[in-house]
Amino acid sequence: MFEYTLCKQDLRTRARAGVFTTPHGEIPMPIFAPVGTQATVKTVSPDELEDLGASLILANTYHLYLRPGPDLIMRLGGLHEFMRWPHPILTDSGGFQVFSLQDLRKVDEDGVTFRSHLDGSLHRFTPERVVEIQEQLGADIIMCLDECTEPHDYHYNQAALERTHRWAERCKNAQTRRDQALFGIVQGGIHPDLRAQSAAFLVQLDFPGYAIGGLSVGETKEEMHRILDMVTPLLPEHKPRYLMGVGSPEDLFEGVSRGIDMFDCVLPTRTARNAGLFTRQGRINLRAARFAQDPGPIEEGCDCYTCRRFSRAYVRHLLRVKEFLGYRLATLHNLRFMLRLIDEIRRSILDGTFVEFKTRFLSEYQIVPEEVREEQRSGTRATH
Amino acid sequence: MFEYTLCKQDLRTRARAGVFTTPHGEIPMPIFAPVGTQATVKTVSPDELEDLGASLILANTYHLYLRPGPDLIMRLGGLHEFMRWPHPILTDSGGFQVFSLQDLRKVDEDGVTFRSHLDGSLHRFTPERVVEIQEQLGADIIMCLDECTEPHDYHYNQAALERTHRWAERCKNAQTRRDQALFGIVQGGIHPDLRAQSAAFLVQLDFPGYAIGGLSVGETKEEMHRILDMVTPLLPEHKPRYLMGVGSPEDLFEGVSRGIDMFDCVLPTRTARNAGLFTRQGRINLRAARFAQDPGPIEEGCDCYTCRRFSRAYVRHLLRVKEFLGYRLATLHNLRFMLRLIDEIRRSILDGTFVEFKTRFLSEYQIVPEEVREEQRSGTRATH
Repeated sequence: MFEYTLCKQDLRTRARAGVFTTPHGEIPMPIFAPVGTQATVKTVSPDELEDLGASLILANTYHLYLRPGPDLIMRLGGLHEFMRWPHPILTDSGGFQVFSLQDLRKVDEDGVTFRSHLDGSLHRFTPERVVEIQEQLGADIIMCLDECTEPHDYHYNQAALERTHRWAERCKNAQTRRDQALFGIVQGGIHPDLRAQSAAFLVQLDFPGYAIGGLSVGETKEEMHRILDMVTPLLPEHKPRYLMGVGSPEDLFEGVSRGIDMFDCVLPTRTARNAGLFTRQGRINLRAARFAQDPGPIEEGCDCYTCRRFSRAYVRHLLRVKEFLGYRLATLHNLRFMLRLIDEIRRSILDGTFVEFKTRFLSEYQIVPEEVREEQRSGTRATH
Repeated sequence: MFEYTLCKQDLRTRARAGVFTTPHGEIPMPIFAPVGTQATVKTVSPDELEDLGASLILANTYHLYLRPGPDLIMRLGGLHEFMRWPHPILTDSGGFQVFSLQDLRKVDEDGVTFRSHLDGSLHRFTPERVVEIQEQLGADIIMCLDECTEPHDYHYNQAALERTHRWAERCKNAQTRRDQALFGIVQGGIHPDLRAQSAAFLVQLDFPGYAIGGLSVGETKEEMHRILDMVTPLLPEHKPRYLMGVGSPEDLFEGVSRGIDMFDCVLPTRTARNAGLFTRQGRINLRAARFAQDPGPIEEGCDCYTCRRFSRAYVRHLLRVKEFLGYRLATLHNLRFMLRLIDEIRRSILDGTFVEFKTRFLSEYQIVPEEVREEQRSGTRATH
């Protein structure tokens, strides 16, 4: 059922193009998955998502567990039926959110106890429980419970990693549905030996896909790239590799170059709602006064609904006065930008021109400086 | 250019079906106009509005004057081009909002001085200025500046009315564009003699259409009906009659019965965002627990996008967790409900079955009690 077919291996980088088969359709890879935290990608409808070219979306187990609850979603036919998205869905384990709760959670060997950020009520996730919840939700790809750590502290990462490995085994044993692909998650912070241990351990468990977790959580881009450089060669060639919670436009290129097949990130959707719009030259802040009377589209040549139909001046007005439609139009553009970009990346791999495309894109695209990214990071990850 | 063609006069009531011609197309009447306060009908795109069957929308001069400003909209080609709505638009004069500002405004013979609710900055509307602003915005139907009063105080209404009449003359004289229909507004509170005076005065100014203002602002439904009963016969037969800021589903029937051709109200859109959904049996509160697991559509048989595609359980979930898509799906349903209702009303007039349709509808539709309406009224009108 869950087969990764390699279509083309780039000869000059580790970039690769493939297809991953799921019960709700094929996922072309590399892929960017928009984030639909609460069973909706914020501001857009499933039909709009389809028009944008999305083929996989992510939903958050933590949020759906709290509201409306996995029992309810299961009784209504599962997540696909509930949100009317007939294409592939991935759910995370909820671990990332729970470990982000800081003072509200307590981890032990068996699992993690936490208080809801909504009402302070007490809950408990164990490996078995998060698999059960994800089976109720019914996504195509589900994730093991892992302990998400601060990436630098070696001893803490070592202890957490061992627990994460025991949890991975328990998740695998807990799985009862065969129509869901359970992915293992490589952890180990920024420490190559821990990452290698983690990859080796998880590979022998023979998961149908592997995620690389614990990145984009406070380390530098260089640290992230070093880890990717060493981890992906340790993962099986015939399984997809998923870089969780990443990325920006430039991250797609850097990840793909290092053999990554899957990305998800709230960046395009959240940034859109804050008037940050992607263009091939870099991100623009549509709140800037210079766009007030600009009759042109967000991005010349873009084929999204927003760019085909509305001016920068109008979208800027809507965002300034906090109108719902403004958030939607900005989101549609940013998602289309990312989905078109990953599609072009894939085609360039198939054509054998990935390196040229990467060079050209990165020479034109002005990257948001690290300190700005750093500032935005906590926000970007908070509900992810 | 602005011609009202009467297609059918109901024989048993004053209901009538007609067509009003504008530079951006014909408006079938009676008509319900969704409210697009800030150059967008909250949560929906112009394409969605078109699909819903809207033919006229209203935008608010007060809000657009403050942001983004009429100069900017004019430079971008006017309101139709700015918001990409190629069909008829009506703008109000801004008077209603300014007079709602209470302590922030001061009226004199020449006009009204007020402070922006946004930043406290000082502004002034005169009859000439509001016509100028509306000419910059470029709607098909524009409104005279009128003084909106508390409806019961006779002497205040009398004084305000005389000023409103002088302002109506000044508005007419100030108009320079011939491609906009300037409507006069009948005032006079709940006092039949003042209403009669107002109608007589405005009719001799020969406006292309007449609004009835100052209703649904604190009087009872019976008081409103009494005023409509006496005012519409005083207005010319070959001009449209517009009941401003009204109404609910039942108001459409009561207004149409009394010869009203045009309605606008934020009720369907605002109520939707508060989880109040219209059905032929009455308004339902989708937050109610009994809908939590309801797999059916908001309303059986409804042809709107929401009802064709999503369950009550899903829309309820989205509204509970405050997701943008929830507001949109609820709005789409309520607008479709109102637009389909006014369309069916029009067809029943053409068929000669209006009275039967009204009787049947009102026997099935449970009206929201007066005290609930009273509570909601200030909210409903606040940004109207």
